[in-house]
Amino acid sequence: MGSIVVDVMLKPEILDPQGQAVRGALPRLGFSRFTDVRQGKRFVLTVDGDVTEEHLAQAREAAQTLLSNPVIEDVVSVRAQQDSGFVRAEGEAQ
Amino acid sequence: MGSIVVDVMLKPEILDPQGQAVRGALPRLGFSRFTDVRQGKRFVLTVDGDVTEEHLAQAREAAQTLLSNPVIEDVVSVRAQQDSGFVRAEGEAQ
Repeated sequence: MGSIVVDVMLKPEILDPQGQAVRGALPRLGFSRFTDVRQGKRFVLTVDGDVTEEHLAQAREAAQTLLSNPVIEDVVSVRAQQDSGFVRAEGEAQ
Repeated sequence: MGSIVVDVMLKPEILDPQGQAVRGALPRLGFSRFTDVRQGKRFVLTVDGDVTEEHLAQAREAAQTLLSNPVIEDVVSVRAQQDSGFVRAEGEAQ
């Protein structure tokens, strides 16, 4: 079983109130090192078997038409992931 | 300027109504190749200068305490990214 990860973020010029709320909360919790926060979405699409180029092409099209709003969002990346998408940091490809 | 990307997903055993809604919409739009969809969150934390190990340590702690709810969510990854976080697929490290 393979999966495809689609990352979507608001365009840089679009106001991000969720990110701003996180940004405001960070220093109150002692995390003072961050100058900005943006919040986006991450989708994990599961496919039967290994991820093929056809799966990726469908995922790229779905990312533009269903998973993002092209007026205000950018599809940051569409990429294959060989595991289930619930791996920990050390297991994730950089 | 560097940035740190934090990926958060609902734990596999937690129901994901947003992901299910996307899963239901995909075949109606002609995308028939996906067997499951999960939706999560992606945070981009900006730092002044290059990302250091101290930044990453703060980001890992913030990921567990502010950016995710450990009861229902997993922090999938916390990783440095050398650009602003708004790159396109071809620019993103795998």
